[in-house]
Formats: sequence, C-alpha cells, structure tokens
Amino acid sequence: MSFTPTPADHFTFGLWTIGWPAADPFGTATRGPLDPVEAIHKLAELGAYGMTFHDDDLFPFGSSDADRRAAIDALKKACDETGMTIPMITTNTFSHPVFKDGGVTSNARDVRRFTIRKILRNIDLAAELGAKTFVMWGGREGAEYDFSKDIRVALERYREAANIFGDYVLEKGYDLKFAIEPKPNEPRGDILLPTVGHAMAFINTLDHPELVGLNPEVGHEQMAGLNFTAGIAQALDHGKLFHIDLNGQRGIKYDQDLVFGHGDLINAFSLVDLLENGGPNGSPAYTGPRHFDYKPSRTEDFDGVWESAKANMRMYLILKERAAAFRADPEVQEAIAATRQGELAQTTLGAGETTADLLADTSAYEDFDPDAYFDGKGFGYVRLQQLAVEHLMGAR
Amino acid sequence: MSFTPTPADHFTFGLWTIGWPAADPFGTATRGPLDPVEAIHKLAELGAYGMTFHDDDLFPFGSSDADRRAAIDALKKACDETGMTIPMITTNTFSHPVFKDGGVTSNARDVRRFTIRKILRNIDLAAELGAKTFVMWGGREGAEYDFSKDIRVALERYREAANIFGDYVLEKGYDLKFAIEPKPNEPRGDILLPTVGHAMAFINTLDHPELVGLNPEVGHEQMAGLNFTAGIAQALDHGKLFHIDLNGQRGIKYDQDLVFGHGDLINAFSLVDLLENGGPNGSPAYTGPRHFDYKPSRTEDFDGVWESAKANMRMYLILKERAAAFRADPEVQEAIAATRQGELAQTTLGAGETTADLLADTSAYEDFDPDAYFDGKGFGYVRLQQLAVEHLMGAR
Amino acid sequence: MSFTPTPADHFTFGLWTIGWPAADPFGTATRGPLDPVEAIHKLAELGAYGMTFHDDDLFPFGSSDADRRAAIDALKKACDETGMTIPMITTNTFSHPVFKDGGVTSNARDVRRFTIRKILRNIDLAAELGAKTFVMWGGREGAEYDFSKDIRVALERYREAANIFGDYVLEKGYDLKFAIEPKPNEPRGDILLPTVGHAMAFINTLDHPELVGLNPEVGHEQMAGLNFTAGIAQALDHGKLFHIDLNGQRGIKYDQDLVFGHGDLINAFSLVDLLENGGPNGSPAYTGPRHFDYKPSRTEDFDGVWESAKANMRMYLILKERAAAFRADPEVQEAIAATRQGELAQTTLGAGETTADLLADTSAYEDFDPDAYFDGKGFGYVRLQQLAVEHLMGAR
Amino acid sequence: MSFTPTPADHFTFGLWTIGWPAADPFGTATRGPLDPVEAIHKLAELGAYGMTFHDDDLFPFGSSDADRRAAIDALKKACDETGMTIPMITTNTFSHPVFKDGGVTSNARDVRRFTIRKILRNIDLAAELGAKTFVMWGGREGAEYDFSKDIRVALERYREAANIFGDYVLEKGYDLKFAIEPKPNEPRGDILLPTVGHAMAFINTLDHPELVGLNPEVGHEQMAGLNFTAGIAQALDHGKLFHIDLNGQRGIKYDQDLVFGHGDLINAFSLVDLLENGGPNGSPAYTGPRHFDYKPSRTEDFDGVWESAKANMRMYLILKERAAAFRADPEVQEAIAATRQGELAQTTLGAGETTADLLADTSAYEDFDPDAYFDGKGFGYVRLQQLAVEHLMGAR
Repeated sequence: MSFTPTPADHFTFGLWTIGWPAADPFGTATRGPLDPVEAIHKLAELGAYGMTFHDDDLFPFGSSDADRRAAIDALKKACDETGMTIPMITTNTFSHPVFKDGGVTSNARDVRRFTIRKILRNIDLAAELGAKTFVMWGGREGAEYDFSKDIRVALERYREAANIFGDYVLEKGYDLKFAIEPKPNEPRGDILLPTVGHAMAFINTLDHPELVGLNPEVGHEQMAGLNFTAGIAQALDHGKLFHIDLNGQRGIKYDQDLVFGHGDLINAFSLVDLLENGGPNGSPAYTGPRHFDYKPSRTEDFDGVWESAKANMRMYLILKERAAAFRADPEVQEAIAATRQGELAQTTLGAGETTADLLADTSAYEDFDPDAYFDGKGFGYVRLQQLAVEHLMGAR
Repeated sequence: MSFTPTPADHFTFGLWTIGWPAADPFGTATRGPLDPVEAIHKLAELGAYGMTFHDDDLFPFGSSDADRRAAIDALKKACDETGMTIPMITTNTFSHPVFKDGGVTSNARDVRRFTIRKILRNIDLAAELGAKTFVMWGGREGAEYDFSKDIRVALERYREAANIFGDYVLEKGYDLKFAIEPKPNEPRGDILLPTVGHAMAFINTLDHPELVGLNPEVGHEQMAGLNFTAGIAQALDHGKLFHIDLNGQRGIKYDQDLVFGHGDLINAFSLVDLLENGGPNGSPAYTGPRHFDYKPSRTEDFDGVWESAKANMRMYLILKERAAAFRADPEVQEAIAATRQGELAQTTLGAGETTADLLADTSAYEDFDPDAYFDGKGFGYVRLQQLAVEHLMGAR
Repeated sequence: MSFTPTPADHFTFGLWTIGWPAADPFGTATRGPLDPVEAIHKLAELGAYGMTFHDDDLFPFGSSDADRRAAIDALKKACDETGMTIPMITTNTFSHPVFKDGGVTSNARDVRRFTIRKILRNIDLAAELGAKTFVMWGGREGAEYDFSKDIRVALERYREAANIFGDYVLEKGYDLKFAIEPKPNEPRGDILLPTVGHAMAFINTLDHPELVGLNPEVGHEQMAGLNFTAGIAQALDHGKLFHIDLNGQRGIKYDQDLVFGHGDLINAFSLVDLLENGGPNGSPAYTGPRHFDYKPSRTEDFDGVWESAKANMRMYLILKERAAAFRADPEVQEAIAATRQGELAQTTLGAGETTADLLADTSAYEDFDPDAYFDGKGFGYVRLQQLAVEHLMGAR
Repeated sequence: MSFTPTPADHFTFGLWTIGWPAADPFGTATRGPLDPVEAIHKLAELGAYGMTFHDDDLFPFGSSDADRRAAIDALKKACDETGMTIPMITTNTFSHPVFKDGGVTSNARDVRRFTIRKILRNIDLAAELGAKTFVMWGGREGAEYDFSKDIRVALERYREAANIFGDYVLEKGYDLKFAIEPKPNEPRGDILLPTVGHAMAFINTLDHPELVGLNPEVGHEQMAGLNFTAGIAQALDHGKLFHIDLNGQRGIKYDQDLVFGHGDLINAFSLVDLLENGGPNGSPAYTGPRHFDYKPSRTEDFDGVWESAKANMRMYLILKERAAAFRADPEVQEAIAATRQGELAQTTLGAGETTADLLADTSAYEDFDPDAYFDGKGFGYVRLQQLAVEHLMGAR
C-alpha cells in the first residue's frame, strides 16, 4: 500500500490548522498569515480532499460585505481550479471579546442574539458552498466558577439556539446536518457538553435530534482521560458520528493538537481499525471526511507546517495498512476467537427465549459453576494486545 | 440550624461503606466484618434514614437459600425495630472471578446469563424490601485493551440486559426504577458508560428509557476531571437524577471514596446548593435520599468508621446551612444580578418572535457593537465567587 | 482579626497579573493595557506590600535604552510615592518568537547567548531596584517530542547558564538569590524541571547551590496532581523555599491561575497553616513575600481585576485567621495527639541508641505484636480532618 | 535481530508480578498462588536473567525462622539449577495492617522500630543472596489528609531510617546500594517523595547520598502526567539511575502495571533508545537489569500470565531493534542535525570565554536579530518526530 494520499482518502484540513500563527498563552505568533487560496492549492498538491474553515478564518470578524464576498469568491475559484471541496464549515463564536462569556449561552442576551445571527449567516454560507456538515464547537459556553451561571438555564438557552438552527435548515431546505464538538475545558474552566456522552444526551432533548450529531476530537476526549476509540464506538452505536477531528494528545493537560498518531499511538491504531474495518463484514464504519484538526508546533516555520500536514495523512495511511494486515492475520483471528468475542456477538437470550425461559434454565444459574473462572477460563486479552501492538509496529 | 442529622434529612449509607474491611490493592484488611444488623442499629442511632446494600454484602456469594433468607429476615427485623428504610439496593457483579470480564457484557455468554439471573433475583428482593431504586454499577463492564472487545457489540449486550430488566419490572408491576452509576475507570482500564453523559445517551437507546436514570457519584465524575455540579445540573435538565452518591475525591487519581466534602469543598458547596435550592423558586431540585458511598480510610478502626459516618452527614448539613445563607444575602443577590444571570433566564427570542424577526432586527447584528465587550461589560464572576467562598467559610 | 490587608502582610502581585490583557489560546485580549505606575498606586491603595515584574512587562521587548530607563525611573518614583517595594523581578524568556525552543536550553546557540545577556541585564536591574529574589521560570525550556532534544545535554546547558548567573552575582556582590519556578507542561508539552522535586535535585548539581532555591506555584504542582502543601514542606525541609506563588487551580488541566483559594480550598488552608504556623513553636515557617501569580478571568473588566486582587488577599487573611483558631482549639490539640503526631516528632532510635541496640531489643521485633493494628489502633485521621474542615468553614 | 530473549538481555521479573493473584479493590483473586521455585524455572525457560522479590513474597509475613530458611534455600537451589540470579530484593512494608500509616514514617514509633528491624533483616538476606540493589518503595509513607502528619517531621524520620540503613551496609561491608522508588499516590492519597525529582532531592540530604539512588517506574511517573524518558534522563544526569521498573500505563489513573509498551508506546520507544543508545558515542546509558514490574491482567489465567511475561521481553527487544535502525538511518541523522541538536551539545560560552567576554560581544545581543525567528528558523521537530514514529512502526 502506498502512503501517498489522494482525494479518494477524503483527508480534509481546517484552514485554521495550517494557518495557525502559533500564538499561545505565553507567547506571540511565530508565523505570519497564510492566504486561504494558497492553502487550498498547497493542500490539493499534497493530496487532500478538502478544506474547512470558521467564518473568521476566511474573512476577519467585522469584515465588510464586499470583503467577505471577495474572500468567498476567491475560495470558490481556488476550489474550482483544484477540485478541492468544502465539506464542512463552522462558526467562530469564541475569539472576539464579545464572546467572553460564551455565544449562545452568554448571560448577556444581546450577545446571544448577535451570536445566533452570526451562525445563521454562516449556515447560509455553508449551503452556498455545498458543505454537508456544520460543526458547532461551543468552547466558550461554560464557566470558571460554579456560581457563575445556572447550568440548567444555560442548557435551555443552548437548546433554544440549536432548535432555531435546526428549524432554519429545515425551512430553507438545506442539505446540512449539525455536528456538536465536545470538549471538557479550555478555554473555559468547565465547558458545557464536556464529552461525547454529554453531547449525545443533550441532542436527544432537541426538537430535531436527527439533524444533530457529533464531531468528536481525539484530544478533547483524551483531555478527560477517556478512551477515544470507545467513545467513537458508542457514537456509532447511537448513529451520531457525523464528522471526526483527528489529532494527537499526550495525556491530561492543555489541548495540544499534535499530529494524528503523535499522541497515544495504540489508541490511534484501534481508532483507524474501527473507522476502516469496524462496519458490517469488516466494511468501513465511517465514510465521511477524515478531518485533521491539529496545530503545527510553534517551533516550526512553514516548511514544518507542510511537513506536519503530510505527517497527519501519512500516519493515517500507515495505520490503515497495519489495521488491514492485523485483520488478515490468521493468528490474530485465532486469538480474537480465543477471547470469545464471537460469543459476545450472540444475544444473551437465545432465539425466541424469554426471560421466563431463562429463569427456568437451571444450567444458567443453579447448576452453573462460577468457580471455574478461578484459575481458569482466562480471556487471552494480553496475547491479543501483543499481537495488535506487533502489527502496529510492523513486527510480524 | 442544628448539624445533628435526623431521618428527615434522608441520609443513607451503603452497608459496604461502613462495613468496608479496608483491603486495598497493596494491603490486606485492617478491619473485621461488620454485622448488618449492628450496622442498621448504629446508623439509626446516628440519625440516618436508611441503608442500602449489594446482595453479596448481606449474604455472601453462593449462600444457600436458607442463609440468604435468614440474613434478609434479620435485616427486615432490624429495620422494623429502628424505623430504618432500604430505599435502594444493588447487585454485586464485579467481585467474584466469574465477573472478571464483566457481567452483562462479558465475552462469555454463560457469564452473561448467570449475571442476568443474579440481577433478576435481586430485583425481586428490592421489590420485597420496598426499595424504589435499583442501582446498576457496571464496574467490570469494560476492558484494559482496545482490541479486547468490540465496544459496539458490548453496548448491544448491555442494552439487551437493561431491556430484560425493564420488561421484568413492568411485567411484575414492581414500583422500581433503575439508576445507572457511571465511572470512567478502575477496576477496568476503561469502563463502558464512563460519565453521566455517556450513560444518559445510552439510556435513550433503551426500550423503556423512562424506567432508567442515573446514580452519579461525586468521585467518579471527578476522576475524569469533570465538574460534578455541572453534570448533576445536566442530569436534572434531562430528568435523569434518580439517585446520588455523595463522597470526596482529591483530583484525577484512583477512586478515593473520601468523606463528602473532604475532596473538592467548593464543588461540594455548589452541589448542595443545587440539590437544596436549585429547583423552581429556590425549592430543592432533588428530593431523594442523600446517599453516602464512601470508604472510611484504611488507617481507621471502628471508632474512626463511625466518626467518618457522622462527618459525612455533618458536612452536608453545614453546607446546606451555608447555601441557605448565601441565597439569603442581599449582597449575593445583587452580585448575581450583576452577572446578568437574570438575562440568561430570558429566552433569546422574545415572546412570539420568530427567526425571521430576529434576522430583520438590525439592533441584533448590523447595529450591535461587539467592541463594547472589550475593556467593559465585565461579568463580575470573580466577585460572586469570592462571596460564595466567604459564605462557604462562614466569613460573612 | 481584620481581613483588610496592610503592607505588614507582605502581599505582592506580579504586574503581569493585574495587567494581563486576557488573550488566551482561543481568544484575543478583552482588556487594554495597564500602566505600571497606575498599577503601583492602585495596589498600594489596596494594602499590598510590593509589586514584581518581568523586564518585558515594564518596557516592551526591544525597547530603546531611553525608553527602558524612563519606564524604570517612573516605577521607582511611584514606589517612592507609595512606599511600595519591588522584592522580586524576573525575566521574560518565553514570549518572543526567538524563544520558541527555549532560552537557555534552545538548540540554537545564538538564542542561548542572547538569553543569557537578557537575563544578566535584568539581574543588574534587580540589584538596582533592591530586589532580593530573582525568579527563573523556564517555561519554554522543554519539548513537545521525545526526540526533539537530548534532555541530558539540555540540562547541562541549563546548569551552565545557572552557574554563569550565580558567578555573576557573586562577582558583582549583589545581595540577590535565585528562585527556580517549576512547571510540568504548558506552553511546552513537557517542561524541564517539572516539579519542585526535580528543580531541587537539579539545584544540587550547581556550582553554588546555596544561591538557588525555589519559587513554587500552587497551580503548577497541582497540574501534576501533586499535593502543594506537601511539596512546600519538602522544600522547607531542604531549605529551598525562597519565594512562593499563590493562586488557584481546579485539578489537572490547563494552567488556570485563579484567585488563591478559588481552587482546592482545603489544600490552600493547610498551606497557609504551614506557612504561618509551621515553624518552631508554631512560628511562621516562611517569612518572605506572599506573592500572587494569578490571572483575573477573561470575563472581567477592570472592576473585576481589582475585585480579584482584593479577593486574593482576603482569602489569605481569612485562612490565616482560621488556621490560628484551628491551632488554638483544645479539641483539635487533643485530636492531633490522638493521631500520635507527637510520636512522629520523637526519633525512632532513642537517645544514644545504636542500630545494634535496636537489633538487640526484642520488644521491637520478636515480641512486638503487629496484629494489634488489625481492628484496633486506628489513627483518628478522619476525625482530625473533619475538625480542620469545620474550622476552615468557621463552623466551630 | 531476534526477538527471543536470553540472559544477556538482563531481563528480570518481580516474583510478585507473575505471582500476582489478581485481587483488586473491587474483586477477589482470580488466580492461585505461584510457587517461587516454579517461577524461577519458568522464567529461566523464557530467557530471563533473574528474579526479584519482597521478603513476604518468598515467605509469608510472620513465618517461622525455619520456614523462612527453607524458602530461601529452595530459591537458592533453583537459582543454582537454572543459572538465574537475584540482582535485587526489596521489603514489604505496606501490606500488613501494622503498616497502615506507613513503615518508617508511621506516626506510631513502635511501628517504625518494627519496620526498621524488618528491613535490616532483609538487607542481610540481600547480601546473602548477592543482590546488588535494595529497593525501597515507601508506598504507605504518606497521608490522605493534609493535617494527618507534619510532612517535614515525617521526612526527618524517613531520613533517620535511610541513614540507619546506609550506616548498616557500610558497617557490614555489604556491596549493596539502595534505590528509592517514587510514586505519587495509591495506596495513600499522597505519597512522600512522589516523583523521581522529589526522591533525588531528598537523597541529597542523607548522610551517604552516594549509597542511594532511584528505581523509577514507568507508570508511577506517568500517573503524575510526567514524561518518563525525560525523568530518566535527569536521573542519569544526576548519576542516580540505579535500577529501573518497566511497565505500561494508560494515562493519569490508578496504577495499571500493564505490559511494557502497552501504555504510551512512543515514550517506551524513546526510553529504550535512551537506555540503549543514550550514552557516550551511542553506548548504552544504563547497563543494569531491565526489570519488569507489571501485573498480568486479572482477566488472564496462567497461560495469559506467561504470555504477558514473554510480551514484556519481546516489546523491549523490538523497541531496541527499532531504536538501532532509527539511529542508523542517514535521513534521521540529517533530520537531527536540522533540529540543531549539535549546537545544544556545544557550550554556550566558547572555550575560554568569560561572562565578561559575552557581555562585550555585541553580536550576541546588540546586533543580534531576534526577529529572524519569526516566520523562519524553524526547528524541524515535527519532521523528526514523524521519522521516529515511522521507525517505531517499522514503516521505513
């Protein structure tokens, strides 16, 4: 397998990733601005499928209508020239001081109204550009202090806004779905909808839950110490994996946004295996864009920026190849069988069996020997894990 | 206000808390067994309202029917004598080697069938004892390794089991609801349904979601670095706070199960404020048992056990008093108003206002001045937090 | 006790704290610049003892000599007018792009030479202003990736630089000591000398270890999940607590720099108790400045900035009062005695006892009954903790 | 390179690792006891070099002298038969209730005296068995509560004990060194000497610091979110890497003790590279035993135990091969050079250059252009990291 990406791999990048000027809480920018048109051309050259952006990435906050339109038209032209797509866009509701207490859940009602207008305008743009996914990262929706706001009331406002957006796309007939991106903290002390779980539970309270899914990000779940692959599996179970943000994170600390695979490598491997081979009969479990939401390290100049962009795609492709080899290895298949995963796929009640039947089945309880699981009936998980890691390392 | 508890405070304790023999991963028990009848009498004497237990706490795993019945009858007698209640019971599906890969999601189908039988039997006992809540902590449902099991398939089995239990109580006509207790890890490397969010999202996929809610535990959410009060607020928003486990945890580490309030004190304060004063017009937002699920430290003998039991209740009562004083302080009310929380309670759209109206309102966007939020329009959160902490410290 | 600060309380603030413009990784500044002279006057008015700063806080990076001198002179004048002191200064070796790979351990030798010159110049300024402590926070000394640099070689360069600075103050005869400020991560993925322990171990390898101590920061140790009070106790044991940075942090996440006490309140209480009452016979264990290194939340305007400055000092004073009351309470003294802390203060060998004597003492081993510690001989720690927390809450 | 271990690889295992009965805080043992003689034979068969143990692993706490001697003699015989060595032993001062408040820092003086006797007896055994390293893991030396003990006084007792042990081996003329094993928490809320840094700083306060070094454990440092490889590099810099405990940990949570490499794989790679190639001219930086201190997962039976033992050694050998290939790759060497690591190895002052010379060198400061580091002079770290990860994955 070649590790050179092509558009068929569906790799996409946020304009804000390769264009990040590399200011951080303790330092100013180390890189100058990146022209969006140049970004499109460069990404196309590297084999990407598309680019995504926040409104303010393309045209600065407060741009005149004319400047905004000029930026949009230049982007469309660049897409036409390169074949690049804009499959997702999102709204910046966190950078300007007006959002300092959040956008759709700011205590300030005028800010909430302004935010909803900004998002509605960006929804129109998404439709114009043919984006199919509209990401909502509510990074400023939250608080540093437990008494800053009534969280239940804030969730009501969040719901009110989400319902407005859902009704709007239905009314307009846009072919657009929403994807909420959870994050536990940073830049707020605690952010609303901190994990994929909280966001999915919230979605169920909306007027049109079918319109709203998730855009989970590797590092965000790992900032809460959660297993990203397991979270994605639950999102798939609930039909809510609408989009995905791939990057790397080294444990529970500030949001690092490293290259995909440069954090928890084993978890990245199981993730790619799930995305690529976790569907029925080993088909892909997810077919949308493989979207990189990372930051080229502040130590790098633009050569390093493009090296890091390539590294993301290359990591994914290597992991994809390794996952395929892992699945194809007969010893792996035997080891998986030894863990009794096949039994897990069987329903616990037999076909047609009722609870009453189970209660009457003395082999299930009265005559069952639980002590056989002492000093016996091991599950063989360590052997399987070692096989997996050896495949990841290309050592088999 | 007196800090001496009475049954009207609805304080309950798990038998496994005061009865914990204090073995840990690196040491053997430092305390002998506690007789359940003695536990009931002692808790009654201290002012508790009820006691809860796992089946195996009351009658050891594998007890004969006669021994099981004798233990149950002795417990009932003790309750009659003391007025104590058993408002909740739960099932041990994690201690015996048979559960080493989980109960309802073990790869081994025979284990799953055994587990369901064990739980069904315990549901009958819950009904017999008049418990209204049946807690399910799936502490062994999980994995150490990403390739140990297909998480989606495991969630299907989890759902199958939960549906069996739901159908069973409906069929039996039991007045019993289920409360799932999430935990991110320990004893498994990653546990299924790791947070309140994940559990609520899962509940929405059940046949009878109305039968199932949450039993969130302070320390479990804090082990993922999540804000417990905010999680409880979301659970209340979604109508899923069926029960609660109060204890203390000092950050992201092993499960400490300290006395309530001996961990993150400020978060404990906001929690009690929410539970006691967070409903409509300042009414309690939660009226169920205040259940302590903690462990008396391994350094303590039985004197220390009872001191720690008292400490839990005393902490709650002091915090409750402080929360009342906080709410009653006019300066606090003024500071809350200054944070514009009143505006958050207003809908973002006006009464009868449509999205079209908002789009036509130039004051909302075209004429709105976002820059007024630079160097102005501060939210006053630090002042309010300081007032809260001073009330917590009794310094006002 | 009054909670109104006076200079006798020795409260100091970094100019960069109250002057933080509140830009963060996801948002631009929400506040404008604060004039240093205004800062001095305002802090004096609030009862502070002194102010500290980085060179670049007072005169921007790259200032002309004349501008630098004007800024210094204005500061001195403001100090003269107000009685404020400058007990500590520090050097910014992290904000400008030139420091993107660190200052004294940058792989780039020209950067290291520039950094040393910048620091030497600032040492002269420290001496001119009468500062007694020169803080070194090497926030950019580190790496994101394990292969970015040879850590041992980097530590050699760190040591070379520290030795140059030590020799310089000795040669110049400056009455100035150095205080290293450890931090585990952010802005680098992993920072060199990540904890108080690592920094103290490193200091022992310097040519003049007596010149160098620590400036530990509450939140920095807590970002590694470490107990700050315990770390300070070890620093005191080793004679290395040269300065201290007080603030608040809510667990393992990005660096929050909250108001002191607004994070882990119980640990803040034990810290103040240690600083104020932990010396011989209950004397203060630390007599230097109580320095606040915090950030007024980004949600706040300047009213909130000054509220937060006051809150820091007020928190300290309330905690100090509570610690005094805790120590004075006879029930507390009795509870402390019950934990056998008095025995810990006795040497384990008796006066004049040798190891040979201990080996010959059959009561120590052969006839000692370890089993007495099962179900007995509890240490009473929970009771003492509850008493401490009640004193903290003013509930006794 | 073969991935089959031989004694020349110096792999050693704790008897408590393969012999762990797999009880955890929420479950009883799932495996029966492992005979130490069988363990020796089995490990020899697998290619190990030696075995280590706590006294209580070999002969239960409270064994008669005869039973103790019989166990020792059987072990020696097994070593003779197999060629296995006992290069390290350690003392259990944490499991029995008598140690519930610690051993050498228990508030109870009689416990401290008993503990010192137990350790002295075990030092004699170490000498008898020819062990060269005596590990001290003070897992119970600590507290759950900030007011439980005066940490400074506890450190004095820790020092008293360490000095007794040091004097004892000097007096006896034993060829034995001590290695302190730090851990941040678990089983205590906070453990004394929580990191490699804290332990090294403490060692500097001992009477014979040269006798005492470290036994760092991968998972223990990672439980504090610290970079293990960086910590080992500092230990090497300070001459304190006396022994090492290899295992795996998946982030900040309870102590997992996974197979080496089954946690943070990239960090395991950089660690092996440092140990094997990090000395002068690429020689090994550490030549002592590669000691595995892990726990075969509780899900496993004895087949899984031995699979996991093999997996540890195999992981190390694969990583060692990958590190050699990484170092040998000319493109890697070029990429390392591009990061300017060669410059870091140069002293910052030139040969013979003084600080005065540096101050006079206008090229270093006055004429230096820091702005060249904006939008230029990138360090190329991401490219090098990608090369490293590709070598780790065998993808080059």
